[in-house]
Amino acid sequence: MNYDNQNIFAKILRGELPCQKVYEDDHSLAFMDIMPQADGHTLVIPKYPAVTLLDIPADQLAALMASTQKVAAAVKKAFAAPGIVLFQLSGAEAGQTVPHLHFHVLPSSLRTLMTRAHAAQMEDQAKLAEFAARIRAALG
Amino acid sequence: MNYDNQNIFAKILRGELPCQKVYEDDHSLAFMDIMPQADGHTLVIPKYPAVTLLDIPADQLAALMASTQKVAAAVKKAFAAPGIVLFQLSGAEAGQTVPHLHFHVLPSSLRTLMTRAHAAQMEDQAKLAEFAARIRAALG
Repeated sequence: MNYDNQNIFAKILRGELPCQKVYEDDHSLAFMDIMPQADGHTLVIPKYPAVTLLDIPADQLAALMASTQKVAAAVKKAFAAPGIVLFQLSGAEAGQTVPHLHFHVLPSSLRTLMTRAHAAQMEDQAKLAEFAARIRAALG
Repeated sequence: MNYDNQNIFAKILRGELPCQKVYEDDHSLAFMDIMPQADGHTLVIPKYPAVTLLDIPADQLAALMASTQKVAAAVKKAFAAPGIVLFQLSGAEAGQTVPHLHFHVLPSSLRTLMTRAHAAQMEDQAKLAEFAARIRAALG
């Protein structure tokens, strides 16, 4: 699939758009979703320009998942969450809205998400900043 | 988290319970979900005894994700699906029903799943066998 380097995550990776950063390493970046489906909704993305799960080389995927696991543990701790929901949508038809591969990490339950998914709204930045700080602290 | 080696996926891995197998390698096994939320709903599990995403070593997770990517590509092809939904629930509170780490791969959309998730029923084995054969063919 062709990669559009003007998508918003590409802009965030290049520093052209801001984000509430949670974690970064050579291969991946994690930040707060600006339209969260639950408090603590975090996205983990590869720096590699992949559109979907099917477009990323195995070594880059391995690095991304190591980061995702690390972030999931921090989100769980930061929100004292009993459970973590991880999901990833490949293709607009699946519900993917930004054409850069991303994993959703949520300290929530599938049942809760189902009832809240349609109510997604733009979240207050101060609140997101506070959540990001809490998760960064849990990573340390 | 303590691993219960009597969970149904542990039994499937030991061959004590049957499954409609899609893929297997040294580190992972993929088979049809018996209570599918969509036609083609496939599970990918590690052979490593992990309960949640937080319990698996990085190298085992890397191998699992390489298999998951391979299976997702085959599911997409086998069902001529425009999109793929991947999800993983860690903890009973998140909605995890079997305490062995598993990734759900569905040739569907998040929206469709939301409307169908509560209607999950035991699927006809012959139908699952046909789907498994279709996905195995797409892997070849």
